[in-house]
Amino acid sequence: MRIAVDAMGGDYAPKAIVEGVMLAKKEFPDIEFQLYGKESEIKKYVTDEHNIKVIHTDEKIESDDEPVRAIRRKKEASMVLAAKAVKDGEADAVFSAGNTGALLAAGLFIVGRIPNVERPGLMSTLPTFDEKKQGFDFIDMGANADNKPEHILQFGIMASHYAENVRKIANPRVGLLNNGSEESKGSELTKASFELLANEKSINFIGNVEARDILSGVADVIVTDGFTGNAVLKSIEGTALNIMSVLKSSILDSGAKGKLGAVLLKDALKNVKNGLDYSSYGGAVLFGLKAPVVKTHGSTGPEAVAYTIRQISVMLETKITDGLIEFYAERKKSENSNSI
Amino acid sequence: MRIAVDAMGGDYAPKAIVEGVMLAKKEFPDIEFQLYGKESEIKKYVTDEHNIKVIHTDEKIESDDEPVRAIRRKKEASMVLAAKAVKDGEADAVFSAGNTGALLAAGLFIVGRIPNVERPGLMSTLPTFDEKKQGFDFIDMGANADNKPEHILQFGIMASHYAENVRKIANPRVGLLNNGSEESKGSELTKASFELLANEKSINFIGNVEARDILSGVADVIVTDGFTGNAVLKSIEGTALNIMSVLKSSILDSGAKGKLGAVLLKDALKNVKNGLDYSSYGGAVLFGLKAPVVKTHGSTGPEAVAYTIRQISVMLETKITDGLIEFYAERKKSENSNSI
Repeated sequence: MRIAVDAMGGDYAPKAIVEGVMLAKKEFPDIEFQLYGKESEIKKYVTDEHNIKVIHTDEKIESDDEPVRAIRRKKEASMVLAAKAVKDGEADAVFSAGNTGALLAAGLFIVGRIPNVERPGLMSTLPTFDEKKQGFDFIDMGANADNKPEHILQFGIMASHYAENVRKIANPRVGLLNNGSEESKGSELTKASFELLANEKSINFIGNVEARDILSGVADVIVTDGFTGNAVLKSIEGTALNIMSVLKSSILDSGAKGKLGAVLLKDALKNVKNGLDYSSYGGAVLFGLKAPVVKTHGSTGPEAVAYTIRQISVMLETKITDGLIEFYAERKKSENSNSI
Repeated sequence: MRIAVDAMGGDYAPKAIVEGVMLAKKEFPDIEFQLYGKESEIKKYVTDEHNIKVIHTDEKIESDDEPVRAIRRKKEASMVLAAKAVKDGEADAVFSAGNTGALLAAGLFIVGRIPNVERPGLMSTLPTFDEKKQGFDFIDMGANADNKPEHILQFGIMASHYAENVRKIANPRVGLLNNGSEESKGSELTKASFELLANEKSINFIGNVEARDILSGVADVIVTDGFTGNAVLKSIEGTALNIMSVLKSSILDSGAKGKLGAVLLKDALKNVKNGLDYSSYGGAVLFGLKAPVVKTHGSTGPEAVAYTIRQISVMLETKITDGLIEFYAERKKSENSNSI
């Protein structure tokens, strides 16, 4: 396995990225890491050179660069070179903590789509607060601003493959995010998507789910259009952040009541934080491309980088992309033979 | 002022509803309350008969009734009679804690739309966690499953009127919920809505806002389509509920560490709860109808009922509906004269 790493993407790059790679190396000594970026900077953090290749480049994509333009103009940027390595067959997957939009563009224009997959979708495994705490795969979190029912169906198929193969969930339950759980509910888009999902034999579609219930483990995969997915994800984040800050003020205000109370509040805060933390599941996968293209938060530290590399290694090991390429090739063949 | 009250709607009806009316009566002795429902049940909780009329009916709409069918078939239901009272000029506003869908249908088919308002939208004032804690008016929270840009513009105009007149916020900032704050961002719907909002001189449009920031006081009014609004509202609720339950477990688990800790955690929990509680702002307004039609949570107690009645009284006092009727009549006139 060879992973192309954009070593210059993210708020703490290249330090956090390279340190994360060094952490991951201990678990996966056989993976070859190709680190794209400023060699002198990267080498500061390389503590073990075995299976590490550093490919020097001075150019990088900034977090506020306009995505498509950046990909087209900065041809020597670390992210672009990492994506090209996959395209040229020199690497098997791309990792970046950089500009999300630019990584989407690099994935789409350089790595390329799986034949017959119309639109890639951005997917993360988010936490659930039920007893199983198994999490759920949420797609599309914002790769698209407008989706058609056919895209939603493809998201469901891809994320179901992921849940089954990478997360090892047997017969994963696929739910459609909707404005009510009854079958008759929904917008034009969700009603048409419901039809397609209900008729799809390769997945275990369980019907509509409401945003109120997604964190409670109602489904293993939840599909929605990229606009709604983005709004829901950001609502969850915003709500959690605001509640955490109320809790933090409570800790500060409790000063007078003694140390013990503060300790207990801190424990509570930690419980909430741990419950919400989904970095151990890995990063966000740009699904529907010819190779795994995976993104972590720009602010993540070395541990989250290592988690994401573990995730990529499972995706490569289980050949999830090959499986999808085959699935869509078979489907196309049977569609063609049906139409003859 | 005369308020038609559906005394049979909600989980604790008629008790919580009538007790809430009794609370509100103390603050507003001049309001006439018309209580629709089972007379013998209602009278149990009427502690002061001044300005109280009980209109008996045996029929009521259940929470799981199919909304439109229920409104059409249960012609003597307490909710239907309350809406008819407004239509017939016998009351000035409708209050209900019953089936939301049925109340939307009753509002639309019995009370009727303001001329030239194409689609009513459901609006609540939600809490903000910034220093001002002024809250924001969120519309549409789910009256519609599909909206056009023209509807979004009308939501913005209506909610801006509300923020200015009822909540007394000068020159309220109107934001469009979008998948990025930059002007170029968005779906086909939000891009077209942005255009309309930016060209609307009667409101103070401040551009796009992201779901992550809405609880932090970025705008006084936030507009979106009913599908997205519903998903965002339910995401906020679901996230808050799950975090609260983690906090509660923390309290229970802290038992061994002594009473003080539990007390402090309870304080923290209370702070979070209070921060999230928006019942003091009143209920959800079905905006765009010829009279205020206002809904509170089915599970609310007497206090929330009283808050909602206060809200209705301010809406009537400030003649918010008349103002909108006039606004849209003027607009139609000037459109007609422009097109001549």
